[in-house]
Amino acid sequence: MTFREKLIAAQRQRHSLVCVGLDTDSQRLPDHLRDSADGVLEFNRKIIEATQDLVCAYKPNLAFYEALGARGWDILRETTTLIPPDVVTIGDAKRGDIGSTAEQYAKALFGNLRFDAITINAYLGYDSVEPFIRDPEHGVFVLALTSNPGSRDFQRMKVVGKPLYEKVARSCVKWNAKGNIGLVVGATHPNDLKTIRTLAPAMPILIPGVGTQGGDLRASIRFGCDKHGELAVINSSRAILYASAGRDFAEAARREATKLRDQIRSYQSEFFTPRR
Amino acid sequence: MTFREKLIAAQRQRHSLVCVGLDTDSQRLPDHLRDSADGVLEFNRKIIEATQDLVCAYKPNLAFYEALGARGWDILRETTTLIPPDVVTIGDAKRGDIGSTAEQYAKALFGNLRFDAITINAYLGYDSVEPFIRDPEHGVFVLALTSNPGSRDFQRMKVVGKPLYEKVARSCVKWNAKGNIGLVVGATHPNDLKTIRTLAPAMPILIPGVGTQGGDLRASIRFGCDKHGELAVINSSRAILYASAGRDFAEAARREATKLRDQIRSYQSEFFTPRR
Repeated sequence: MTFREKLIAAQRQRHSLVCVGLDTDSQRLPDHLRDSADGVLEFNRKIIEATQDLVCAYKPNLAFYEALGARGWDILRETTTLIPPDVVTIGDAKRGDIGSTAEQYAKALFGNLRFDAITINAYLGYDSVEPFIRDPEHGVFVLALTSNPGSRDFQRMKVVGKPLYEKVARSCVKWNAKGNIGLVVGATHPNDLKTIRTLAPAMPILIPGVGTQGGDLRASIRFGCDKHGELAVINSSRAILYASAGRDFAEAARREATKLRDQIRSYQSEFFTPRR
Repeated sequence: MTFREKLIAAQRQRHSLVCVGLDTDSQRLPDHLRDSADGVLEFNRKIIEATQDLVCAYKPNLAFYEALGARGWDILRETTTLIPPDVVTIGDAKRGDIGSTAEQYAKALFGNLRFDAITINAYLGYDSVEPFIRDPEHGVFVLALTSNPGSRDFQRMKVVGKPLYEKVARSCVKWNAKGNIGLVVGATHPNDLKTIRTLAPAMPILIPGVGTQGGDLRASIRFGCDKHGELAVINSSRAILYASAGRDFAEAARREATKLRDQIRSYQSEFFTPRR
């Protein structure tokens, strides 16, 4: 099964576009788990148990695991094994290096850590992307327009009249011979999301920034989905993980994830006709 | 001592601008060390012992260690402890993420792995850079114009008449309040290196691509150094690491590193007047 097929199947089976970002910060855990590497794993286990029927994907950000050193790498690998096999795993790695080095990252992220897909930064151009898209079972989400304030520094610069992020999206469309490239577009930029969805009508788009960062969920569904109301992957990290600071964190996370899934469903029915 | 002071001191004390890229690929090691994580550590130990009086810096590329999983992370950390304390360590990580995540990467790379400096990708803008430049004891090399073929895909795109890489370099000059930002410019682009050095007369410039990738060493020294013939960091990885495929790999690496250091010195005397 290709990465794209797996994503679509997960979205349909669970009627959900929700992705939980496992950006687990050991310093933000409930008291009984705080500041311990094993606490991070236990926290992830409970979050996954509480939300796995509500999501199409999980997206651990590697930075939070690297901050724990070698043990963090093990915890990340153990975390991915806790995720049901029909749910998509996205390694939020934002890697990007010359071709021969990108092959090593592909080995690390697809081989060792067994992610279905990863996020990458394409500033280094095609040969930095190619090693990640050789096998259609694995996919990438290329950073186009990110959710943060710094996205205006370079991504919006005009290149022959068009913003740079649009050039990146157009290149990805051109490079997508195997159908396993997606894009990252922050929910904080609804109008640009519309432009990008028009350029790339059938690509998965990973949309971070709807929770703590204040992105626009309704517009993200309206403009981020394909014509069937699918293929947007709506990520929420902190708003779900830290919904409660107490021992009830997993139930609180489940409540938040349910709320997000249902809100997305209501916007889907507002803007799209259900498939038959 | 700031990162910049440490780099200058290392270059002066060893009369060398050479940086050895520890891109140690377990599959390319001599027979007796091949395909073993411990082999990678032993290889690095021998390479460092054989070259440490000849270099100003070592630059492990994280991809090669991540490809080994959690053990790779330990080997990377052990490798950095083998490097003499007055030689600069550069983690070639090419990281770049939103501010709150970049803080976690800073913890991983400066805290856990204790690098003096790292390479970063600034596509996400200022808030993705800022967490790495808070402490002048640590530095960054921001990717401007990389050595690979894909550098033409986006980095050379014209933004209001100037190539994007130049915009990146100008932003770095503006952001460099603490004097700990450097740039990465491939030796495969000598004319652009000249432009960048003019824009950033006092910044360290990390210059990969002189070995296997065929960059121009003479032009890299001529255009990449500051007015004192310093602050260019000339990286060679494969040409030094794999100078011999046999048991004499460390001696062969020493010969190659010596040759590179001396060639650089002769170009320094061709183009610069020695400091008094």
